[in-house]
Amino acid sequence: MIWNAAQLCELLAGELEGDGTTEIYGPSQIDKGIPGTVTFLANPKLEDHAYDTQADVIIVSREFSPRQPLKASLIRVDDVRQAMQKLVEKFSVNGRPEEGISALASVKEGFDLQSGVSIGPFVTIEKDVRIGANAVIYPHVYIGKGCILGEGVILYPGVRLYPNTRIGNRCIVHANAVIGCDGFGYRPDEKGHYQKIQHIGTVVLEDDVEIGANAVVDRGTLGVTLIKKGTKIDNLVQVAHNVTIGEHTVIAAQAGIAGSSTIGSGARIGGQVGIAGHLKIADRVEIQAQSGVHTGKYPEGSRIFGYPAIPYNDYLKAYAVFKHLPEYMRRIEELEKQVSDLKKDKA
Amino acid sequence: MIWNAAQLCELLAGELEGDGTTEIYGPSQIDKGIPGTVTFLANPKLEDHAYDTQADVIIVSREFSPRQPLKASLIRVDDVRQAMQKLVEKFSVNGRPEEGISALASVKEGFDLQSGVSIGPFVTIEKDVRIGANAVIYPHVYIGKGCILGEGVILYPGVRLYPNTRIGNRCIVHANAVIGCDGFGYRPDEKGHYQKIQHIGTVVLEDDVEIGANAVVDRGTLGVTLIKKGTKIDNLVQVAHNVTIGEHTVIAAQAGIAGSSTIGSGARIGGQVGIAGHLKIADRVEIQAQSGVHTGKYPEGSRIFGYPAIPYNDYLKAYAVFKHLPEYMRRIEELEKQVSDLKKDKA
Amino acid sequence: MIWNAAQLCELLAGELEGDGTTEIYGPSQIDKGIPGTVTFLANPKLEDHAYDTQADVIIVSREFSPRQPLKASLIRVDDVRQAMQKLVEKFSVNGRPEEGISALASVKEGFDLQSGVSIGPFVTIEKDVRIGANAVIYPHVYIGKGCILGEGVILYPGVRLYPNTRIGNRCIVHANAVIGCDGFGYRPDEKGHYQKIQHIGTVVLEDDVEIGANAVVDRGTLGVTLIKKGTKIDNLVQVAHNVTIGEHTVIAAQAGIAGSSTIGSGARIGGQVGIAGHLKIADRVEIQAQSGVHTGKYPEGSRIFGYPAIPYNDYLKAYAVFKHLPEYMRRIEELEKQVSDLKKDKA
Repeated sequence: MIWNAAQLCELLAGELEGDGTTEIYGPSQIDKGIPGTVTFLANPKLEDHAYDTQADVIIVSREFSPRQPLKASLIRVDDVRQAMQKLVEKFSVNGRPEEGISALASVKEGFDLQSGVSIGPFVTIEKDVRIGANAVIYPHVYIGKGCILGEGVILYPGVRLYPNTRIGNRCIVHANAVIGCDGFGYRPDEKGHYQKIQHIGTVVLEDDVEIGANAVVDRGTLGVTLIKKGTKIDNLVQVAHNVTIGEHTVIAAQAGIAGSSTIGSGARIGGQVGIAGHLKIADRVEIQAQSGVHTGKYPEGSRIFGYPAIPYNDYLKAYAVFKHLPEYMRRIEELEKQVSDLKKDKA
Repeated sequence: MIWNAAQLCELLAGELEGDGTTEIYGPSQIDKGIPGTVTFLANPKLEDHAYDTQADVIIVSREFSPRQPLKASLIRVDDVRQAMQKLVEKFSVNGRPEEGISALASVKEGFDLQSGVSIGPFVTIEKDVRIGANAVIYPHVYIGKGCILGEGVILYPGVRLYPNTRIGNRCIVHANAVIGCDGFGYRPDEKGHYQKIQHIGTVVLEDDVEIGANAVVDRGTLGVTLIKKGTKIDNLVQVAHNVTIGEHTVIAAQAGIAGSSTIGSGARIGGQVGIAGHLKIADRVEIQAQSGVHTGKYPEGSRIFGYPAIPYNDYLKAYAVFKHLPEYMRRIEELEKQVSDLKKDKA
Repeated sequence: MIWNAAQLCELLAGELEGDGTTEIYGPSQIDKGIPGTVTFLANPKLEDHAYDTQADVIIVSREFSPRQPLKASLIRVDDVRQAMQKLVEKFSVNGRPEEGISALASVKEGFDLQSGVSIGPFVTIEKDVRIGANAVIYPHVYIGKGCILGEGVILYPGVRLYPNTRIGNRCIVHANAVIGCDGFGYRPDEKGHYQKIQHIGTVVLEDDVEIGANAVVDRGTLGVTLIKKGTKIDNLVQVAHNVTIGEHTVIAAQAGIAGSSTIGSGARIGGQVGIAGHLKIADRVEIQAQSGVHTGKYPEGSRIFGYPAIPYNDYLKAYAVFKHLPEYMRRIEELEKQVSDLKKDKA
């Protein structure tokens, strides 16, 4: 979406001071303005930034009177926050594919198109797939045999659903995420060569789950890898086979959950956290970024940290001493000398 | 694949108690049953779960006599484990693309199709590519110029092979994995600006290697990034340029191996492990999840842990003390006071 | 690209000793030679490797006289390094798609094709996209509505650009990287259910930025996620919403930067590093692999390490003591006993 300053001004019923032909491709924040963007001066405390922002256009109130010369053009409006809201809506048009099935998609015979569904170019839909009303399937998505998708699902470009994956209503899966691939399961034979364990389970995402870009959720070995309703998973997260994640839990980027572990509801898991396999993590546990969780013994609502993770404050206190270990080492040595002297004196 | 309970029952030559029209899309475990699935009661110790499982159908022996009412339908069979095996085979049909080259694929002239090869829609195959018999190339795969693939290779949707990649027989590469991209190599010029080092090496996967979803293996700078036979690599793993990984090694999800390191055979590398560059790691080393390996000095078969990694038991013992450091700090302070008192007394 | 030994020899105006029909698919290093490759003996110190390399062809000087029998064929040339350079150029031909728009691409009407641009099969280009001269768009790339790409940009297969992303001149984005997806932002409602915060900002990559395979850069919430000129980002890195990264910074594989943090120019960030949100990291800071950065207080040019990160040498010194903590614990206990004895004696 490219606008020029004059068009933006008209949209906002504002008054333009400056060059109407300047092209604008999006919004930016006034303290991080960049060329080609429009920004806002809604908070008077940020006025200083108005004079050095690199944004090309600033939306200001009709009353705004600059204290010094401005490089940016101005659009004066009655209500800056309302104007901002209006622009946000304009720029958020996200180019979803058109309703219906693109002539460039590959959809197996017998597919039953529900109302409001969009299927973009180069989408592959295998046999026995069902997709609920108003779902949006962006280009380059692969939907394996027997997958079932709820209403209003959004699959961004390049999402891969292995066969029999089940996606609840209103779930969002971001670009290039992979759901339902084989778990990492092998049996070493007598020579130590790994023989693959067939994975024929599935993945179930309940309603309102969101999965980040390039994240991976493995299918169950025999059963189900289950992510319960309302849970949000960030980019590049790994969820291994047979894991269960409770409701309304958030998992930040690059965290990994090993096979067969169960995470409670309302948990908050930081970025790059690693959770070992076969654990049961309680509800509402908060795990600090990068922690390594090797046991499930922490009670509901605990906050943990470290590698292996221990209670958050215990880790911070121990680490505060850790930083001074060389000094403590010297103090121990000094004590040893003094005690040795005392003993000699006594003898 | 969607079945109803009556069809399943017929397949298993069983006896149905309940609604034959219930739809079933896959199997689940009895203690983690979910709607729309079939489960099994083979182990009498799990009988309690039969009464509260959310699975819609339970396969039981002909003799099974419930102690209380059941929500699920039952299919009674002669041999529960045999029935389970039969279903596993049925559900594992994974919807591979049809044999031959899809009319929707883009394959350069001169490609020589071997027997039993399947090439799905929207696959791109560049010049001078060779693919062995019985290989399965799922939709949306990209195979760059000059790649050579062995027999029985499986490339799942969205796999990207950069030019000249070599994939051995029976290798499996999961969805959206990238093999052969440029290594992360730059030379800072006199201004500190990074100039790209051209990478013209290749990647070689020997026979029976498996690579997880969204994993990345960089090409060699000039030479080869080599993964030897039988090695299994999990999702989201990073293998940098010029790395060599020995035979029958397993590397869990999100681990990363920096440039030019060599990993031995029969090694076991945990999730999120980081291995620095230019190291030589011995055979059969076992590296605990999240460890950071900064040296290759550990002997064959060692087990290591920590950041930087040290012998496993040493880390656990040191960490056991670490957790109580604030207490030891106080004990040192107390000792200092007492020794000071003793010295004063003496004076 | 597959050559045989005789063709290579002709290309290099050399003299062949051995089988001219041997097929060669690429170069390798002499100490890591593998079948099907050509290698070089330029450094006399490496001569021992010439006798046991598995490469099929070795390029040597006209004067080279082997001390023992060789398995490989030889190509004798006047200048080994010059020949090497020539081959490197030959093998680096990377199979870019042909100039123009592939008949198998999906490009919205109104797209204005600049000179020298290549757009491969199964590329999707949405409305209002602009692409500069000489850009190369490999197969299976998705370019969302309103994206603007500079001159000479290279997007490898499967790259996904969400709408309104802006890519500077000569940027390179590797396969399956995702740029511009929604940030991980939710507001918990009164029941603790997460409500999605709409992300309508953008991503801007300035000139000469490189992004690794399967990396992810989130769009700004309202403003911009900004990666400044000359910065290089490795595979599987996560850059969250509203982050700013300075010029000529390098970030190694699997590192993650949480929302709204600012990284300075000329910084060096190791693999698997995690940087918390809302920090301001100074210029030229060097962060050791796997460190966790929880504060921005480190001055320009510092080197830091640990979890949480502290000055590099401080961490190493503290960790050196950490490894011997069980011994120090015993020494404290011993001291306590001795001091207690001394006190008893005195009493």
